[in-house]
Amino acid sequence: MKDKIRVAVLAATGSVGQRFVSLLARHPWFEPVVLTGSSRSVGRRYGEVVRWVVPGGIPEALQEVVVRPSEEPPGDVALIFSALPAAVAGEIEPRLAAQGYAICSNASALRMEPDVPLLIPEVNPDHLALIDVQRRQRGWQGFVVTSPNCSTTGLIFPLKALHQAFGVSRVHAVTMQAISGAGYPGVSALDILDNVIPYIAGEEAKIEVETRKLLGTCDQDQISQAPILVSAQANRVPVLDGHMAVFSVQLTGQPPLAQVLDALQRFTPPKAVRDLPSAPRRPLVLLKQQDRPQPRRDRDLGEGMVVSVGRLQACPVLGYRMVSLVHNTLRGAAAGAILNAELLVAQGYIAA
Amino acid sequence: MKDKIRVAVLAATGSVGQRFVSLLARHPWFEPVVLTGSSRSVGRRYGEVVRWVVPGGIPEALQEVVVRPSEEPPGDVALIFSALPAAVAGEIEPRLAAQGYAICSNASALRMEPDVPLLIPEVNPDHLALIDVQRRQRGWQGFVVTSPNCSTTGLIFPLKALHQAFGVSRVHAVTMQAISGAGYPGVSALDILDNVIPYIAGEEAKIEVETRKLLGTCDQDQISQAPILVSAQANRVPVLDGHMAVFSVQLTGQPPLAQVLDALQRFTPPKAVRDLPSAPRRPLVLLKQQDRPQPRRDRDLGEGMVVSVGRLQACPVLGYRMVSLVHNTLRGAAAGAILNAELLVAQGYIAA
Amino acid sequence: MKDKIRVAVLAATGSVGQRFVSLLARHPWFEPVVLTGSSRSVGRRYGEVVRWVVPGGIPEALQEVVVRPSEEPPGDVALIFSALPAAVAGEIEPRLAAQGYAICSNASALRMEPDVPLLIPEVNPDHLALIDVQRRQRGWQGFVVTSPNCSTTGLIFPLKALHQAFGVSRVHAVTMQAISGAGYPGVSALDILDNVIPYIAGEEAKIEVETRKLLGTCDQDQISQAPILVSAQANRVPVLDGHMAVFSVQLTGQPPLAQVLDALQRFTPPKAVRDLPSAPRRPLVLLKQQDRPQPRRDRDLGEGMVVSVGRLQACPVLGYRMVSLVHNTLRGAAAGAILNAELLVAQGYIAA
Amino acid sequence: MKDKIRVAVLAATGSVGQRFVSLLARHPWFEPVVLTGSSRSVGRRYGEVVRWVVPGGIPEALQEVVVRPSEEPPGDVALIFSALPAAVAGEIEPRLAAQGYAICSNASALRMEPDVPLLIPEVNPDHLALIDVQRRQRGWQGFVVTSPNCSTTGLIFPLKALHQAFGVSRVHAVTMQAISGAGYPGVSALDILDNVIPYIAGEEAKIEVETRKLLGTCDQDQISQAPILVSAQANRVPVLDGHMAVFSVQLTGQPPLAQVLDALQRFTPPKAVRDLPSAPRRPLVLLKQQDRPQPRRDRDLGEGMVVSVGRLQACPVLGYRMVSLVHNTLRGAAAGAILNAELLVAQGYIAA
Repeated sequence: MKDKIRVAVLAATGSVGQRFVSLLARHPWFEPVVLTGSSRSVGRRYGEVVRWVVPGGIPEALQEVVVRPSEEPPGDVALIFSALPAAVAGEIEPRLAAQGYAICSNASALRMEPDVPLLIPEVNPDHLALIDVQRRQRGWQGFVVTSPNCSTTGLIFPLKALHQAFGVSRVHAVTMQAISGAGYPGVSALDILDNVIPYIAGEEAKIEVETRKLLGTCDQDQISQAPILVSAQANRVPVLDGHMAVFSVQLTGQPPLAQVLDALQRFTPPKAVRDLPSAPRRPLVLLKQQDRPQPRRDRDLGEGMVVSVGRLQACPVLGYRMVSLVHNTLRGAAAGAILNAELLVAQGYIAA
Repeated sequence: MKDKIRVAVLAATGSVGQRFVSLLARHPWFEPVVLTGSSRSVGRRYGEVVRWVVPGGIPEALQEVVVRPSEEPPGDVALIFSALPAAVAGEIEPRLAAQGYAICSNASALRMEPDVPLLIPEVNPDHLALIDVQRRQRGWQGFVVTSPNCSTTGLIFPLKALHQAFGVSRVHAVTMQAISGAGYPGVSALDILDNVIPYIAGEEAKIEVETRKLLGTCDQDQISQAPILVSAQANRVPVLDGHMAVFSVQLTGQPPLAQVLDALQRFTPPKAVRDLPSAPRRPLVLLKQQDRPQPRRDRDLGEGMVVSVGRLQACPVLGYRMVSLVHNTLRGAAAGAILNAELLVAQGYIAA
Repeated sequence: MKDKIRVAVLAATGSVGQRFVSLLARHPWFEPVVLTGSSRSVGRRYGEVVRWVVPGGIPEALQEVVVRPSEEPPGDVALIFSALPAAVAGEIEPRLAAQGYAICSNASALRMEPDVPLLIPEVNPDHLALIDVQRRQRGWQGFVVTSPNCSTTGLIFPLKALHQAFGVSRVHAVTMQAISGAGYPGVSALDILDNVIPYIAGEEAKIEVETRKLLGTCDQDQISQAPILVSAQANRVPVLDGHMAVFSVQLTGQPPLAQVLDALQRFTPPKAVRDLPSAPRRPLVLLKQQDRPQPRRDRDLGEGMVVSVGRLQACPVLGYRMVSLVHNTLRGAAAGAILNAELLVAQGYIAA
Repeated sequence: MKDKIRVAVLAATGSVGQRFVSLLARHPWFEPVVLTGSSRSVGRRYGEVVRWVVPGGIPEALQEVVVRPSEEPPGDVALIFSALPAAVAGEIEPRLAAQGYAICSNASALRMEPDVPLLIPEVNPDHLALIDVQRRQRGWQGFVVTSPNCSTTGLIFPLKALHQAFGVSRVHAVTMQAISGAGYPGVSALDILDNVIPYIAGEEAKIEVETRKLLGTCDQDQISQAPILVSAQANRVPVLDGHMAVFSVQLTGQPPLAQVLDALQRFTPPKAVRDLPSAPRRPLVLLKQQDRPQPRRDRDLGEGMVVSVGRLQACPVLGYRMVSLVHNTLRGAAAGAILNAELLVAQGYIAA
């Protein structure tokens, strides 16, 4: 790539926005040139308004960028990353797509629209076919591609491996989610220190519906949701980063443990995806120690892009159970959306 | 009761032993007169050897008690509370029972013996019939009654309420357990700060088998285990006290939500149990707020004797799901065993 | 006392306000009848608007009280407890005092006014003489009495004991303060988990100036501040309740360690204060274990009204050093202000 | 360097030992070929016996190394890194030095011996002159060089900068130390969650005496300790890595704030030290934000080799106060000892 692709980050001052900024500042293909924020920040320098909460400092090159309003077209950029809150994303993202922008969104607003891809490159790259449908139906020049909820992402890698090997009919999941999933300031320390909160607004429904869409098949320009019963119970735990999911699955045909193990270990994405700059060599790793994965010790595997799985064993109720872990603000948010963008470039949806 | 009943506490220096000591020092019926410990402590004053880790200080009256060896008969006491580790409990408890002592044990060693009651007064008081079987078969003067695993206890109250109302056929449980469940020093801070450990040795099997025994029926002097499929996955979380369980149940006859709610709310133990000194007015409480129960905020309900339940809702996979919480070192350990002893006194198994 | 004294709580929905409500609901002398809140809460039921974060539930009797605006006179009450933020307290409290109300305030706004008592009953009860000055100078019917900053309170008990015994000339203090000191939601979990924040806005100056006023002498109707150099550095630590202070003191006359120890141990408030309902038998307790006081293990001493001190030893730089602990939201806030009110009643400033 | 220098790590299974192993496995000059451990581990594979607790996994190349006993000479190595506990280090290290080995020790046993360098390359490289004294006096072929206590290291950088610029006469320090400083398993989670422990055995005396030795002048083959009064109070806080120190200093000649700031900012080690592989470009960094340094956010600066300082301000008692932070298991332990070894190689004490 001769010149880097100019990109904008919407809601760049929030915690997911900061992850975008931090990752894009050293990205081989993309160059962040426009950062947007709320009215409080607009017109001021990024380095001055941002309350930086992610590791590493504010990228030197972006300290002086003047924050622009999220509502206005970002001008000469070929791609927009959106970390907008769902409430405003539902309004702003379609407008920008209509104006011709390609948008990789981390917001939940459009994820379940029938003509909007909910994308994880290693899981359902074929769903990109929806982009043409979306443009055609909506008359847009641009388009929107969305990333799933951070906790769905941790589940979906092992589920994809099992679904393509055997067929999954039921999933019972309980999550233990990090506080960073709630943004900043997010969870009050008074609520979570020495505590667990067995409720995260909206999270359970997202996991249930997004799983079916992600594992759905794409034909004749539409997604047929996978016929899987999913039950998800979401909990907040005093962990900084890393969403765990304890889940049981019912598989078709009652395969023996060795085959299930094998299906998880052999999971390999298409070569075109593996070669993308942010793609880990293996996106799904099986840990052998009996007490892993653990959020603090395994969340950074593959620079936060690897989903780790462990404790695979028979489940007396559904068949098999296991534990998975995903870095919720990297693979599960900003870095996941950037990988989506890389696939879009590789497939020609965005001009390099 | 004219005079208090003289009791011994085995392994009184450990964290569960300390809870026994703390509770018994102000108990209306029992008076702790013998405290035992490991060879390191034997012959020294309790107040000097104990590394006190439970709330409140060391009871003044017991500071000067000289610690005795756990292996030797404790002399003139009518009742023994055992906080022994399972490995030694399996040897010491039968020997003391053979010597005529009544033992309320918190250890797991004998819980699953067919002739040993695994008792929660509000759940299966009729299982005490096994005491006669035990004495007859083993030729003991004394007897052993055991308390369940701390995490089983949190599950069993709602399960009992539902099992007697509808019949439970399957249970899928995921626990989030406090560090105090591992004793002291127990879990290293380096292992659990900003972390979750998805493994507790032996815990899952205990939950699975103990649930079936506790809900089993007692006839013709033996327990028929309840025919329930149970899957349990145990996790350690950075919480001081309070084991949570997120669980789904399959009920017979698919009752509507209102009936399930009603069964949980109406759960009432027999009056003879409710009147025991350590029994809470209602052992099972349904919390209405959508983000409860929470360990830090609800573990002390009913002085740690109430199991709280919340988030009851439909589960797409098994029927219903909910969240329960138990104070693991009170109801789930020392205070639970003391309540067992109170029932034994009330029913004449121990002479007042 | 025949009838309880009717009282109002300003800003009753915040975390300190909740502590007031919780303590007053079971107080032998006071009866909370008016609760105020911000415009968001006004006109709605207290039980419905409050996000309850302190131990125990919302007092049953106050669930239905309709929240009133903080700015308006609370009507027929003999006493007002104020948990207002400093910014509004400086405006509202004088207005209410002018209207005839007696106010015990936890806010910092008026603490350093020369004619406003900054009161801890065991430390400087004679400062109440300022009430007459205040009324005279300002032409008020009512009056305002303030409580010190929560971290000052932990320091002032040992300092008072030492100052009256030997004279203190220099104090060097470093605090480690609980998150509850910042109110609710207050500190973000993302800021404090696995972390320490070496800064609390405004706190250091408060400790430095309040210490001199509290230890000052009251004569000819004014306070002469104690001539003590105070250096305070404030830090936030991941602790729920309990402010610790590590401090060194330079004493007049270089007394030997035994005398210093003795001065701390012998500290006894006047009998009139010791007999107040919220006063602990001994407000200052010296702990002997070498690793105490600790916030979680000692904050609840004397129902949160005892300041504990430990680790007294020679300091190579200033003379002596030690560690003190105070429950910041009980003795250091709501319960401290209630004790102030009890002294006002006992001395006739408020009609019983 | 043509071939890497063969090195041994004593006590390689402990948490500091693991840091040594992790850092040496990718070191440009050193190659770890011998790992020792306690009798429990001897004769077994390193990858099998180690309970790995530091970030990153066990280095692949060392998984299969067979653990040897710490007491025996490690054979053909040119350098030994010792993470031995103080109790055994005092016996084993002199014996190995007598046998001709060069030892870089992290243990406290020999730190205060008059003829043993207590070394930080950027602070007192001239103290290496003691090696000749040590060899001459003890008749050793080899020698021992020690690293300071992890909390001393955090203080000494700013103190060195100030001492060389103005002269320091008094230091009053309060530390807030991470749990990793106690090794593994080290601190029980039951002791430190929601808590602070105001005591660390032996720590305060170490800080007080080591500071004077490190800042001492070396002439006529002996160290004259710096004439500084030091008071240190050590506390354990619920932080994983990173020791903070809040400290005040009395400087000679009362320099204005700008000069003090300047002295801290200009601190630069000799070029020979700056060029060592593990040396950070600037070992002392002044942070400008008013709430920094913070352990979690600043401990990894310069890959854990930078000491950060912030909150410099006037101290009413001693002159100036500030806050410093050091990564206790990197700069303050293993990485610091490796930097010492690099200096020894650069100066010819160890043959490359």
